[in-house]
Amino acid sequence: MSELDRVISDLVVANRILAREGVVDAFGHISARHPERPDRYIMSRSRAPELVTSDDLMVFELDGTPVDARGRTPYAERAIHSGLYEARPDVQAVIHNHSYDVIPFSVTRAQLRPMIHVAASMGASAPVWDIRDKFGDGDMLVVTMDQGRELARAVGQGSLALMRGHGCVVAGETIKLAVMTAVYTQVNARLQMAALRLGEPKYLTAGEIEAMTRRQKTPVASDRAWEYWRERAGARDL
Amino acid sequence: MSELDRVISDLVVANRILAREGVVDAFGHISARHPERPDRYIMSRSRAPELVTSDDLMVFELDGTPVDARGRTPYAERAIHSGLYEARPDVQAVIHNHSYDVIPFSVTRAQLRPMIHVAASMGASAPVWDIRDKFGDGDMLVVTMDQGRELARAVGQGSLALMRGHGCVVAGETIKLAVMTAVYTQVNARLQMAALRLGEPKYLTAGEIEAMTRRQKTPVASDRAWEYWRERAGARDL
Amino acid sequence: MSELDRVISDLVVANRILAREGVVDAFGHISARHPERPDRYIMSRSRAPELVTSDDLMVFELDGTPVDARGRTPYAERAIHSGLYEARPDVQAVIHNHSYDVIPFSVTRAQLRPMIHVAASMGASAPVWDIRDKFGDGDMLVVTMDQGRELARAVGQGSLALMRGHGCVVAGETIKLAVMTAVYTQVNARLQMAALRLGEPKYLTAGEIEAMTRRQKTPVASDRAWEYWRERAGARDL
Amino acid sequence: MSELDRVISDLVVANRILAREGVVDAFGHISARHPERPDRYIMSRSRAPELVTSDDLMVFELDGTPVDARGRTPYAERAIHSGLYEARPDVQAVIHNHSYDVIPFSVTRAQLRPMIHVAASMGASAPVWDIRDKFGDGDMLVVTMDQGRELARAVGQGSLALMRGHGCVVAGETIKLAVMTAVYTQVNARLQMAALRLGEPKYLTAGEIEAMTRRQKTPVASDRAWEYWRERAGARDL
Repeated sequence: MSELDRVISDLVVANRILAREGVVDAFGHISARHPERPDRYIMSRSRAPELVTSDDLMVFELDGTPVDARGRTPYAERAIHSGLYEARPDVQAVIHNHSYDVIPFSVTRAQLRPMIHVAASMGASAPVWDIRDKFGDGDMLVVTMDQGRELARAVGQGSLALMRGHGCVVAGETIKLAVMTAVYTQVNARLQMAALRLGEPKYLTAGEIEAMTRRQKTPVASDRAWEYWRERAGARDL
Repeated sequence: MSELDRVISDLVVANRILAREGVVDAFGHISARHPERPDRYIMSRSRAPELVTSDDLMVFELDGTPVDARGRTPYAERAIHSGLYEARPDVQAVIHNHSYDVIPFSVTRAQLRPMIHVAASMGASAPVWDIRDKFGDGDMLVVTMDQGRELARAVGQGSLALMRGHGCVVAGETIKLAVMTAVYTQVNARLQMAALRLGEPKYLTAGEIEAMTRRQKTPVASDRAWEYWRERAGARDL
Repeated sequence: MSELDRVISDLVVANRILAREGVVDAFGHISARHPERPDRYIMSRSRAPELVTSDDLMVFELDGTPVDARGRTPYAERAIHSGLYEARPDVQAVIHNHSYDVIPFSVTRAQLRPMIHVAASMGASAPVWDIRDKFGDGDMLVVTMDQGRELARAVGQGSLALMRGHGCVVAGETIKLAVMTAVYTQVNARLQMAALRLGEPKYLTAGEIEAMTRRQKTPVASDRAWEYWRERAGARDL
Repeated sequence: MSELDRVISDLVVANRILAREGVVDAFGHISARHPERPDRYIMSRSRAPELVTSDDLMVFELDGTPVDARGRTPYAERAIHSGLYEARPDVQAVIHNHSYDVIPFSVTRAQLRPMIHVAASMGASAPVWDIRDKFGDGDMLVVTMDQGRELARAVGQGSLALMRGHGCVVAGETIKLAVMTAVYTQVNARLQMAALRLGEPKYLTAGEIEAMTRRQKTPVASDRAWEYWRERAGARDL
């Protein structure tokens, strides 16, 4: 299997996993940088992630221009992905989602912070980006390169940013790592919400975040999770 | 496919979607205005939405009189639908539900307001209608035209009203839009409930509500959601 | 189908419904008074409700003595059912469950009260019975007639009582009505818990409770719900 | 069936049950002491519990050294199991999990305590062990015998300990009892969290804990639950 074939296969499986784990619903998307053309990325046409097949995958220029549209309608919010691939050569995969557990942390002052070790890869805390601050009232979608670049700036060198009243964006070194960060950020949000009812939680320290993130990147951890999520999503043979 | 056939098909699918997304349980119903006879509407006989087939669909006069009963028992609360079709020529679809996430906002002073962009079509805030205010103690069902008209008055030019200790009614320009409003109003209720634990949430502004509602009505958004929900409901071939 | 056959069939279906709706887990049980012998009742052998078939059904004397054990082990807590059938000739069905949403109201001073119209049949409020008050420290199970009679006293002329740190008992005029009360008491508990976060909820008035309970007992309401729950439980052909 | 065959079969079923009941996700594991060699234990290779088959089971020395690796990668956190089997000859089964409902009690001062009778086997309250206290900042995994022994010390003569920001460990006299404790500790956590919103809950007394734990160990209780969970997990024929 070529590197490109592997990315395509992982991307389809990742779409199903994100749907099965409730990270995305009808909306949300995941992309991967093209393995042979780092100035391009691959992402489904406009379609709910649960339904995505390899035939839906399109290739885009860094600015979001489709290379091979063939009549397919792309997602409106390509600029989320464009902004990150342009700003961060280390990023190989980007997820945009409307995770229901995460969104409450995007509209209040409470900070989403890692409290469980498996959520370490989200980083020390989740910055919140409000499109209204710079772009004023609108439909809140990230559709211009300007907007995408601003959002990428909010992510900075981190792995994610929340989008006020909208969702979140996750950046990863691999498709598998981005999926793991997205899933466990959601789990962490749910658990932090619960823990806050009991008092001030103990969060992970900087040292724990660093050590545990390293651990999560080992194949023994990330492959185990991937195999499990893929099976649960019924995506073994995709 | 004639316009009437399309409405019938969409109505059956919508019933399944509302059941699958947990917007309705054994109770609740959705209707559509008759595409050839704006003084009539189409709705299932008295049956849980998850089980509705095209054979269950009946035609009603605007006042709720069945045109073609053929021994079938209609829903008791037809007046909810009658009231809205009578008052609002722009309304083509009406949903009544007992959404569990929405009901808590119907019995307290807390106001349900859009906090996430996909819930924009619910409008600036959800009015609460209490049948007891005008009709006194009773079984709380909306069964007379008087009651239906009062409820329609509470909806006004908006897209929904909550019914105290009972549920909610949603009005839409199309079946698909009404379904989207019902589903995301429920999601918004769940997320607002969570966010309120963290502090006062930032709600959508009037400008955001307007711009995002426009966006939700485009086929790229509403068809994508519809395709996804229909598949999840196992209703592709209905 | 004889009345006895109908009761047996409904009882098997009711077991599956209670399991599917999450009212019972591995534990909990439902019984029905014997239609030809009001001094006897019918209930499964000791088995999780989700797995019960007609072969599991046993007949008991009012004091819980098995009439036809044939080597089958009965539930330990038959006295819950015995106590109610003895005290209440009008009761034709009894459910004991560990409903997760209801239990929090059994260990605190907060009173479970009907807030949504479909929960009207639970009555004005749920009394809490603590076995420790009269019987002291023990395994908390209701296994003697004395204990069963005390619990029945807590129910009084009502339709249910909560059991502290344990669950609840529901009494009904029919199997279908008992199931409806058990399911919607659980829904009401979940919604009341949520509403209490937003402020003091408006509860149903005495007049609403009475009128709506009457409505719930009509076939148009109870059969619609039963058909839906039976289908969801995959119990159509049982 | 030999005792060893029975343990192997129960262990595979237990893996599936823990996955189905949401006690474990991609991570977490269950082991059993070898019935013929009390200085050894049996546990799956590194794999999500939902996917474990008998071919995945490996045998380990008490210090975690694999006896029969045959190229299979073991779990990194064997020391959790090693520590308990070494310290507690009465322990025949050990579960490590990341139960989402339990974790909030591991990061705050609120104490997880039994509130429902079916959770009695968790003991009077759940001690919390923080690996950071003795071992400082790290990836929070229990990978050395030193760490495993410290964790076993926190469990003491009890049946479980929470691990700060990580999960929990459960020790049982049998596989079935350990599974029951793990499942109902999770249920108790969820219900205690809810009850705390309503006021200070009544917890089980010492006498109730002792009497009910005895009850839970009888076959009529533990076999009924096991049969139910096994069926739900689709593991009847494993």
